[in-house]
Amino acid sequence: MQRRKVIGLAGAGVVGAATAGAVAWRSTANGEAAQESADRIAFYGERQAGIITPAQDRLHFVAFDVITKDKAALVDMLQSWTAAAARMTQGKEAGALGAVGGLPEAPPEDTGEALGLPPADLTLTIGFGPSLFDSRFGLRDKKPAALADLPKFPGDTLDPALSGGDLCVQACANDPQVAVHAIRNLARIGMGVVSVRWSQLGFGRTSSTSTTQATPRNLFGFKDGTANLKAEETSLLDDHLWVRAGDGPDWMTGGSYLVTRKIRMLVEPWDRTSLLEQETIFGRNKGEGAPLTGRSEFDEPDFAVRGDDGEPVIATNAHVRLAHPTQNGGARLLRRGYNFVDGSDGLGRLDAGLFFIAYQRDPRRQFVPVQMRLARQDELNEYIRHVSSGLFACPPGLLAADDFWGRSLFT
Amino acid sequence: MQRRKVIGLAGAGVVGAATAGAVAWRSTANGEAAQESADRIAFYGERQAGIITPAQDRLHFVAFDVITKDKAALVDMLQSWTAAAARMTQGKEAGALGAVGGLPEAPPEDTGEALGLPPADLTLTIGFGPSLFDSRFGLRDKKPAALADLPKFPGDTLDPALSGGDLCVQACANDPQVAVHAIRNLARIGMGVVSVRWSQLGFGRTSSTSTTQATPRNLFGFKDGTANLKAEETSLLDDHLWVRAGDGPDWMTGGSYLVTRKIRMLVEPWDRTSLLEQETIFGRNKGEGAPLTGRSEFDEPDFAVRGDDGEPVIATNAHVRLAHPTQNGGARLLRRGYNFVDGSDGLGRLDAGLFFIAYQRDPRRQFVPVQMRLARQDELNEYIRHVSSGLFACPPGLLAADDFWGRSLFT
Repeated sequence: MQRRKVIGLAGAGVVGAATAGAVAWRSTANGEAAQESADRIAFYGERQAGIITPAQDRLHFVAFDVITKDKAALVDMLQSWTAAAARMTQGKEAGALGAVGGLPEAPPEDTGEALGLPPADLTLTIGFGPSLFDSRFGLRDKKPAALADLPKFPGDTLDPALSGGDLCVQACANDPQVAVHAIRNLARIGMGVVSVRWSQLGFGRTSSTSTTQATPRNLFGFKDGTANLKAEETSLLDDHLWVRAGDGPDWMTGGSYLVTRKIRMLVEPWDRTSLLEQETIFGRNKGEGAPLTGRSEFDEPDFAVRGDDGEPVIATNAHVRLAHPTQNGGARLLRRGYNFVDGSDGLGRLDAGLFFIAYQRDPRRQFVPVQMRLARQDELNEYIRHVSSGLFACPPGLLAADDFWGRSLFT
Repeated sequence: MQRRKVIGLAGAGVVGAATAGAVAWRSTANGEAAQESADRIAFYGERQAGIITPAQDRLHFVAFDVITKDKAALVDMLQSWTAAAARMTQGKEAGALGAVGGLPEAPPEDTGEALGLPPADLTLTIGFGPSLFDSRFGLRDKKPAALADLPKFPGDTLDPALSGGDLCVQACANDPQVAVHAIRNLARIGMGVVSVRWSQLGFGRTSSTSTTQATPRNLFGFKDGTANLKAEETSLLDDHLWVRAGDGPDWMTGGSYLVTRKIRMLVEPWDRTSLLEQETIFGRNKGEGAPLTGRSEFDEPDFAVRGDDGEPVIATNAHVRLAHPTQNGGARLLRRGYNFVDGSDGLGRLDAGLFFIAYQRDPRRQFVPVQMRLARQDELNEYIRHVSSGLFACPPGLLAADDFWGRSLFT
């Protein structure tokens, strides 16, 4: 009886009606000390956080389908998302209407599992997928040419259900519960407007986005992406990462394009491969991560050097050669991918790999040609499968508290 | 050409033949400092580590099928596993034959992704499932009566492919990459002898197993399991956790029985439920975790108190009442479960929940009756689904370096 009554009330919109008397849960749980913690990344700024922010340790990435045709409802949700994101990235609960002191008859405005946890460097980064620019919301004319669907690459085995999406949010944090909490609360706020299309947890970062970070290892045991774009390389970032005025529609100026690829790694056959073979495929040694022509990780690979047998020391089809900027007309990417294990695959193997994330100024001149080359020639392809793909336009950051995600696109 | 030659060599057993000249990778990467780190849990001891060890933050759990009928091969693998586990829990690579200084023509004896990472409190805990005691290995007479298959509980929606298993290994660590690395290397060592049946990552602990730890929150946002058995309660542990001489076959004396349940949480309907309803279902308030009859988390719930309306303040079917030891003939469990998110379910929802882990002296007198009561009456059942179930006999710890996992069972 009571349950029905309560649910009825909630359904009737009590949530929206009540805002007084609410107490901030997280600060209640932590005391004022939480407000002073150092592990908070600013939400407002010229660029969205979560791109050149030093890569946090954990990821929860989600792609949403918009399930309404009501543009106003979508814009409304984006405003609510922005407010919640501004709060959560600062270590607060998602909404002001909490439990303690809140209205017991209404669903809480925060789901509670991050109560008492620190901000943990949480960043939330929004992107808009090509499919959002169809006829539903009148956005056809605002679609950037750079947001053209990715081509099919040789060997692609993409699952459409795990690919694409109208919207995406990348949550990165040093505490996975904080990242999961943020995505879950955005999904909660979006009920009836968006639906989770796919989502991915990543447990370990595989890239450094700052010169202050050590290069981590992927699940093949190698350091990769040593030549990654880094936050400190401001002039390279202007050339390769941030969209410039004139590159396309104004709403993307100062933003960046995001490509995601879920790359299953066939770790079992890899683990039966000799060290020599592994190092030949990557073109690096495994222990130090040095190119086979060098001694330490950051030595520039020398692709011209030949061994006593007359063959190139770094093989023609080695990963480090094929992916290197000097071999790709200077194309650079900012990578911030994560290792994943999604249980097992039902065939006696771990379902493990790399959730690849790369930001760039124009995928048509960066990710696409580099990946086309890798897909055609990389020896590593024997041990990997691309199973999911995403492409999103991530606008610049918000400068004022009355701005919101997508305002310049929708209005 | 070279590839074939190298793989051929590896297949011919070069790995086993070469042990000289190997360099310990992890200590190479870290220098000697790694040997001094404080975050190492002893592998040898009277009890297996990973049971009363203060619950680490991250989990990788795996269940294996044995795919050989050759008992000697299985025993061999258990010896190799033990040696690798003893090394990895101390922050070393899985095998002595590493990359740097190792044989390039052989597959490395460590997969490399934990190179440079600290031990991170890694524990590896082994268990033997009921199915191992069939006719294959002559173990019928050694099967403990307490390892009887769990009954079907009302509402169970178990996936057989995600349940059971001949062997299990629980890897807990404060760095997920360290836990994943350990399981992956055991799977690698076990190739041809065992096959991964199912595996589960957990990103956040949901229980405290020591009075020094704060109670964390599950994905419903609540503190649960406040009355959990804790490492410091030695006399309770003797009664409820550790198998005693005379309880069953000798090989399990000093061990414990492990029950796992993957519990999908329907977070979307939960998030539409009022705070009042949520608190009524748990019998606790959400902010503090206090029982509805008390003020702070560790106040004993008073199940007799009635409100002004004459109804019990803690409802008859509230979770805290149904699960409480005083309502279950004193039955206690040591829980050390983890939150999980396995992406989305294809129906627009997060695939999220609790991977429940409980250790006990005898499931027939502990988990089974408590769960039967919960399955029949708990209001929470509207929001959860049990999708996977496991039961394993975890023997006592190893005291000497020449002992190995399963020796007392197999010999």
